[in-house]
Amino acid sequence: MNAPAVILIRPQMGENIGAVARAMNNFGLSELRLVAPRDGWPNPKAHSTAARAEHIIDAAKVYATFEEAIADMQLVLATTARPRDIAKRVTTPDLAAQELRAHAGNTALVFGPERAGIENSEITLCDAIITIPTAGDNSSLNLAQASVILGYEWVKASGAAPLFTQPATLDLAPKEEMTGMLAQLEDYLDKVDYFRGDHKKPTMLQNIKTMLLRGAWSAQEVRTFRGILRAIWERRLNA
Amino acid sequence: MNAPAVILIRPQMGENIGAVARAMNNFGLSELRLVAPRDGWPNPKAHSTAARAEHIIDAAKVYATFEEAIADMQLVLATTARPRDIAKRVTTPDLAAQELRAHAGNTALVFGPERAGIENSEITLCDAIITIPTAGDNSSLNLAQASVILGYEWVKASGAAPLFTQPATLDLAPKEEMTGMLAQLEDYLDKVDYFRGDHKKPTMLQNIKTMLLRGAWSAQEVRTFRGILRAIWERRLNA
Repeated sequence: MNAPAVILIRPQMGENIGAVARAMNNFGLSELRLVAPRDGWPNPKAHSTAARAEHIIDAAKVYATFEEAIADMQLVLATTARPRDIAKRVTTPDLAAQELRAHAGNTALVFGPERAGIENSEITLCDAIITIPTAGDNSSLNLAQASVILGYEWVKASGAAPLFTQPATLDLAPKEEMTGMLAQLEDYLDKVDYFRGDHKKPTMLQNIKTMLLRGAWSAQEVRTFRGILRAIWERRLNA
Repeated sequence: MNAPAVILIRPQMGENIGAVARAMNNFGLSELRLVAPRDGWPNPKAHSTAARAEHIIDAAKVYATFEEAIADMQLVLATTARPRDIAKRVTTPDLAAQELRAHAGNTALVFGPERAGIENSEITLCDAIITIPTAGDNSSLNLAQASVILGYEWVKASGAAPLFTQPATLDLAPKEEMTGMLAQLEDYLDKVDYFRGDHKKPTMLQNIKTMLLRGAWSAQEVRTFRGILRAIWERRLNA
């Protein structure tokens, strides 16, 4: 797997660099490049928010200019919250992740400085702009937020199985167990004259069956419910 | 639009509550409910990380128990990083967002406390569990990260147009402008005897055309390139 490098241009707060490293670690990215970090490097504050991603902070490389940071890159995608007056292709985080996955060479995701954003002269050197969908005009995401979204889409684009799936106990009961349970219930209801000869009995039964089937029970849950029915039925006989 | 409420169970750090509010504001969510926040409420630290979402912090409602917080809810989805021994449906952020969009009633997204996560007795009251895809065993996302991902998927599920799209200057040139440009180039190349009678001229020309067409130029860019060709051609004549 050829994961993209993450390039931060002129990052200001060490805490934000750490938060980006944490997100990278959460989502399987490991190569961090810093262009002219404001407070120099190394920066102890970057460790405080990196959680278990200190190894990414420690391995980060520092460059004087963006040109140097992308020198060996073949596909460079930059995130930005505002449109630019540059005839540059625009893409979204999910499409960008698929594009990065499909690219065999060296790739990079670029994030600009906290307030100013990436300069147009730097955008010009990138292959495309990524715009992250937000609501209305609250489009300003911080570095921690933006890196989480791109990392998350990178993992999603892998098509990997989710972290965990339905528990096996949720496996649906075979239909014969459901119909057996429904027959048992109908038998009890008939015996207690629940329907009182109502001509709507078929509709009422249909609604009851629909209601019970909606729960999508497992075989064990069907057995539990049948036990409940039987317990109530037998207690009624003993009462 | 019936956006889900966000419910934080026993949140610890005010800064994290603020970060969740910021993410909510970024992604069009506004109703915040807090179950027994550790440091009481109001909490001044929640404002410090809320960016422009102070109104969400100010309108947050506090509940003593999770049951009270979900009393009026009809669909409640809980995020958790670890599987539970509960026969509960498991979903993903994108599918959860679509499910919330499709639901007409009151819905909620639930996040557990920072370290301990949601208790099983609380998970039991939810309709499904959301698991966020991460890389390998680095599955521990903080509140700020998890709320950004769910908010982002909520906006994505709206099918709304992205924040901005390709600039109009990227509209591709009509093909006749491309072929005109290529004809002009071929004319110059013939006049300077670029191909020197090489029998591979057709292949060479095909490669040159392919290379130039890959840029997917706009009409203006085609005109610019034709101007460049002409300028070089004429300067050559003057030289």
